[in-house]
Amino acid sequence: MDVINVMEKFSLFQDQWSPKVIADLNGQQVKLAKIKGEFVWHDHKDEDELFYILKGKLKMQFRDGVKLIKEGEIIVVPKGVEHKPIAEEEVWVMLFEPAATKHTGDVETDMTVKNYERI
Amino acid sequence: MDVINVMEKFSLFQDQWSPKVIADLNGQQVKLAKIKGEFVWHDHKDEDELFYILKGKLKMQFRDGVKLIKEGEIIVVPKGVEHKPIAEEEVWVMLFEPAATKHTGDVETDMTVKNYERI
Repeated sequence: MDVINVMEKFSLFQDQWSPKVIADLNGQQVKLAKIKGEFVWHDHKDEDELFYILKGKLKMQFRDGVKLIKEGEIIVVPKGVEHKPIAEEEVWVMLFEPAATKHTGDVETDMTVKNYERI
Repeated sequence: MDVINVMEKFSLFQDQWSPKVIADLNGQQVKLAKIKGEFVWHDHKDEDELFYILKGKLKMQFRDGVKLIKEGEIIVVPKGVEHKPIAEEEVWVMLFEPAATKHTGDVETDMTVKNYERI
């Protein structure tokens, strides 16, 4: 039962758009990611996905508009809702989602990570 | 799909040892709590429980020792592991756990909250 220091974990990687698993519980995972630029449109058919912004500002684009999520803020994207994260400057984000969640849903692109690294 | 500001949510309540639900996803909940003093020994038979310390220092007592969890740190207490949170000064904590998680497990005390408030 380790104590996990979130900012220390962020210091262990620099690659963007590549979530790292820091904890597993109840079939869910806590992941950290650094992101900058535009991701791909995708949804997760069966999984709600929580984004908790720990540094920077994330624009979450939806088909019917955009939400700005700032440091210290959370958004939960419900299953089946298409979304596209956009970060003009690098954003550090904590994700909380089922372990089965695929990175880009049923969409597959050059950005898709199939096996999440654990740190 | 609201944007949830975590510190604004903490400003909405002062009562201690009374977790408030701020988000629901995948049968799990995100809760916030302010705690000070000693809680009761308990475990959760079927639920792992994540504690993310957002202010202060938490001592988590286990039957075989104690862990200190500081601001910005996480601990996951696995199902079935007895634990007793202790906060010498007020601690602000975010919890991730299944919606079915009972506050004090099968132990019932004056501190037990049966219906979590939503904020």
